[in-house]
Amino acid sequence: MSERVEEFRPPQRLLLGPGPSSVNPRVLQAMTQPVLGHLDPVFFKCMDDVYDMLCRLFRTSNKMTLPLSSTGTGGMEASLCNVLERGDTAVIAINGFFGRRMADIARRCGADVHTLEFPLGTAIDPNVVEEELKRHSHVKVLGVVHGETSTGILSPLEELCALAHRHDALIIADTVSSLGGHEVAVDDWDVDICYSATQKCIGAPPGLAPVTLGPRATDAMRNRETPVQSYYLGMADLETYWSNTRAYHHTTPISMMYALREALAMMVEEGLENRIERHARCAAALRAGLQAMGIGLFADPAHHLDPLTTAVIPDGVEDTNVRTRLLDDYNIEISGGLGETRGRIWRIGLMGDSCREVNVLALLSSLERILPGEGFAVEPGSGVAAAQRSLVAA
Amino acid sequence: MSERVEEFRPPQRLLLGPGPSSVNPRVLQAMTQPVLGHLDPVFFKCMDDVYDMLCRLFRTSNKMTLPLSSTGTGGMEASLCNVLERGDTAVIAINGFFGRRMADIARRCGADVHTLEFPLGTAIDPNVVEEELKRHSHVKVLGVVHGETSTGILSPLEELCALAHRHDALIIADTVSSLGGHEVAVDDWDVDICYSATQKCIGAPPGLAPVTLGPRATDAMRNRETPVQSYYLGMADLETYWSNTRAYHHTTPISMMYALREALAMMVEEGLENRIERHARCAAALRAGLQAMGIGLFADPAHHLDPLTTAVIPDGVEDTNVRTRLLDDYNIEISGGLGETRGRIWRIGLMGDSCREVNVLALLSSLERILPGEGFAVEPGSGVAAAQRSLVAA
Repeated sequence: MSERVEEFRPPQRLLLGPGPSSVNPRVLQAMTQPVLGHLDPVFFKCMDDVYDMLCRLFRTSNKMTLPLSSTGTGGMEASLCNVLERGDTAVIAINGFFGRRMADIARRCGADVHTLEFPLGTAIDPNVVEEELKRHSHVKVLGVVHGETSTGILSPLEELCALAHRHDALIIADTVSSLGGHEVAVDDWDVDICYSATQKCIGAPPGLAPVTLGPRATDAMRNRETPVQSYYLGMADLETYWSNTRAYHHTTPISMMYALREALAMMVEEGLENRIERHARCAAALRAGLQAMGIGLFADPAHHLDPLTTAVIPDGVEDTNVRTRLLDDYNIEISGGLGETRGRIWRIGLMGDSCREVNVLALLSSLERILPGEGFAVEPGSGVAAAQRSLVAA
Repeated sequence: MSERVEEFRPPQRLLLGPGPSSVNPRVLQAMTQPVLGHLDPVFFKCMDDVYDMLCRLFRTSNKMTLPLSSTGTGGMEASLCNVLERGDTAVIAINGFFGRRMADIARRCGADVHTLEFPLGTAIDPNVVEEELKRHSHVKVLGVVHGETSTGILSPLEELCALAHRHDALIIADTVSSLGGHEVAVDDWDVDICYSATQKCIGAPPGLAPVTLGPRATDAMRNRETPVQSYYLGMADLETYWSNTRAYHHTTPISMMYALREALAMMVEEGLENRIERHARCAAALRAGLQAMGIGLFADPAHHLDPLTTAVIPDGVEDTNVRTRLLDDYNIEISGGLGETRGRIWRIGLMGDSCREVNVLALLSSLERILPGEGFAVEPGSGVAAAQRSLVAA
């Protein structure tokens, strides 16, 4: 008499979009470990390991370094709402979708938000930012996206940190798409608040947002006049759980923490520098292959983001037709544009476990087969050959 | 030369605390399925299944029914911040730790919060609540905890809903510890906002917070004058992703969604009524066993919460000694008191997959062996025998 629910058997996609990236079976397998209580001493050991490895990944010794129980957007919100109070001034540099989201969230914190817009496909210009900081008596927060996932641009974070501090502002950096795929040196560059997400270059499933706060940021939190508007994302209370006090705050996502620990262990075993070099090598091959096929790149070549390449959709080619064929016939996911670039660009991610030489070749050869049928002539093998030459040269 | 990270091999605990509960291997296994993109049509099918089964669990046809990408505390925050605006009046009934947390969060939303305190171990008294509602010209929100996990009390939610609506207030109900273990009839009782968590009677790992909003709540959201202070937890935007629009909001925790889908499938296969009856039967056996051993119950017997039983720690017995022996020697986790009841009570959960007759007997027999060494005489077999009699009679 009992009712049966059909099994859910998702296909094995190759995830080459802006995230999530494909997750290594070793990381998926870690989630089958028995669930522990969030106050079990054995679980505290797992937390300690995650803390240590996150510090290595962020290149920091910040005590307040932990994975929030949210996705990257929750990390963005936590970074802003823990330091901003009503009436504070924030300057947000916008060169894509996620900068705009930062401004939206800062406004919801009650801040007086000043935005600086940069053309899509270009980096944040530190000179323009500095002019804006000079215009205000005191800017509390400068918000920047290090790796803008919507356009494939890497902005000069180190320089932006220095100028923020010249003007006594805290810098908040979104490294959702850059951490693990580019150099991010929180202590050396003196980043005050840096957040990321697990499902991109870290190579775990989505669901946690690693974040780290330096001394200026923790001072700003301590000197608040009003409580943080979010209880769930309140870093001071969360830190009592992550510190030796281990005081209950909320029930942490145990299985996700196992996955993050395993993904970080794989990062340590590979070596962070090797991983960054892998992202650079594969991205260069992808760019070479696309260009050899006659497909233009959208991002300023001086500032391209290795984990996420943006390609201009050739004239006359229908965005969704190509992506649907890639997904249905080749089990490969790439993504379209977000916001203003919808229909104009493809976003191709090579992140974490998805970032492999064979995947670059698989994608290029699939496109070589699909595009002629969509009205765009391609010399067979041209993209793959160029990518191979790039890989050999690397 | 490459560095190796030690494997993490957590022991197989029997989780009989206030959550997380032990997760069935079938649910853990679901998380090893390949990760899909959050905009993959195949993943939309998974979301549809989750929606359908959550509606059955909540007993609702509310369109705005979805699992938030947060734990239960994020569900609490979302429920409050989506309807409350600065200056709104909220009445929060407090009969334990989680009612107090609700009041804290409502204050962070800028609401004018009036709290009603009930003695720990007793239920919320609707008459007292009604007196308070009468005292204010307009109460926008009445917040109540249906199953108070800190004390093991189930409050009369149906009655509280009726009186909230007599006074034109929205009712927000915390069903974190009751959903799936007691009757929760969102449509029949006319609950405006109801939230829960995955790691208790639903039987999935922690990390998602199912929530449902009825017509009065969605009207209140639509009529807001200011944006919701949280972007991450903003239900109107989230619903565009869960509705047919499927517009990107944030990257949903894919693997956790697989786990939730599988746990809900197991609920459907068991039958919700059978599951509730299982929670009642096991809890009755536990209570009978504890009392036969001479251990008192903390919660008002007229209002006990089946998924979470609170036991008074016998005089002279050291809380942590017993719990440490249970954990170290028997791999069984139970929990101590939270807040004022620390050191005074034990909190014993029988939730989801942990809620099994054999687990009741395992815990009681372990306590029978541990307690005499901790200065509390127990007749060997007395607890187990009483529990067995209760199970046979059920």
